[in-house]
Amino acid sequence: MSAIRVPVVEKIFSANDRMAELNRNLLNSHNIFSINLMASPGAGKTSFILETIKRLNHSLRIGVIEGDTAPVTIDADKIIAAGMPAVQINTGGDCHLEASMMSDGLNQLPLDDLDLVIVENVGNLICPAAWDLGTHINVLIASVPEGDDKPYKYPNIYRGLKVLVVNKTDLAPFVKFDMDYFRQGVEMLNPGLVTFPLSCRTGDGFDKWIEWLITQVHAHQQTS
Amino acid sequence: MSAIRVPVVEKIFSANDRMAELNRNLLNSHNIFSINLMASPGAGKTSFILETIKRLNHSLRIGVIEGDTAPVTIDADKIIAAGMPAVQINTGGDCHLEASMMSDGLNQLPLDDLDLVIVENVGNLICPAAWDLGTHINVLIASVPEGDDKPYKYPNIYRGLKVLVVNKTDLAPFVKFDMDYFRQGVEMLNPGLVTFPLSCRTGDGFDKWIEWLITQVHAHQQTS
Repeated sequence: MSAIRVPVVEKIFSANDRMAELNRNLLNSHNIFSINLMASPGAGKTSFILETIKRLNHSLRIGVIEGDTAPVTIDADKIIAAGMPAVQINTGGDCHLEASMMSDGLNQLPLDDLDLVIVENVGNLICPAAWDLGTHINVLIASVPEGDDKPYKYPNIYRGLKVLVVNKTDLAPFVKFDMDYFRQGVEMLNPGLVTFPLSCRTGDGFDKWIEWLITQVHAHQQTS
Repeated sequence: MSAIRVPVVEKIFSANDRMAELNRNLLNSHNIFSINLMASPGAGKTSFILETIKRLNHSLRIGVIEGDTAPVTIDADKIIAAGMPAVQINTGGDCHLEASMMSDGLNQLPLDDLDLVIVENVGNLICPAAWDLGTHINVLIASVPEGDDKPYKYPNIYRGLKVLVVNKTDLAPFVKFDMDYFRQGVEMLNPGLVTFPLSCRTGDGFDKWIEWLITQVHAHQQTS
């Protein structure tokens, strides 16, 4: 998001919303559940996806769309090495994914063979919040070494979340992070938000996320 | 930055550059050196400013402009508590500071009584890189727990830097961070970039940054 507030921007948002709806319809027609995964740079999005793939152990078929600001395939390569299809979308320096980019990604994934599509958005706590991609839920990864004041300082991204992951709990002994203060900020913005404190590094707390994810995907597949 | 590429954006950039030049002229007329401090959320920008103020121990007179996306004065309050004048600029949800916002901030600082103005930009590795504020140099804080691949994934912000700080080196034993791989990425984008690995928490490495900063401010004041 930039400070530009002119009619052309409203048209772009409106076009984005229409494209997002088409993406969602496409996913539903293939009985696929989809997650828009957001976080600041280095909070552990790719590690989180890799650990999710590992723990699901092929019980769900996952496709990944990797959003990057540069033409580097570091993250997509890791997903493919983990045995799942992945597509890299290079935003060309832009700060967020848009529904049209997600559409390009979906067109390159084997949708008939998937239960779940995870979109790893560009690392950014601000701009991605404004763009519906056509996924079913927004998930944010906060990270313990980022500090406990982020809900207060980046409130918009917390408002549209279905799930919050608090990663790198293994670093809590070495940094200042008051979980009560953090949770109070989150509660103010998004009361009752489902939250999973966990560590991708040690695996602590990951089981609950996996259990929740499987339930959500199955529930979606039974209703769509 | 958004994906919008229309003439209105070029006009806004051009207006921004003119305003940036006015800011720089204003700073020079007061013999003030100025830093645009950027980083992703939680890399330690405010801690870095606080530790810099503490170590300078009034040998330089510092004013701080705090850029936030929300009307919270958490960071500005900390600077004021440390005994230095600070102004909070709320971007209203926008993802970066612009020269006009910096101008508003400068108008609220006691410029006759300052040697150094530090602008703490919004926490974001993408959008701030495109906007000249009128400061003299760009400084980026990278953080060890963010991981060693950030120069490869967010290259644009590294290209315009005068100085790179690598914060939270005290967490290196607990996370995967290959300093050689990180430095290779930086070197590719910005050869010979002055880099200070340090820890705001333990103080390790901070002396060299302070020494460099004092030299820069004095050199600026002698030539302007």
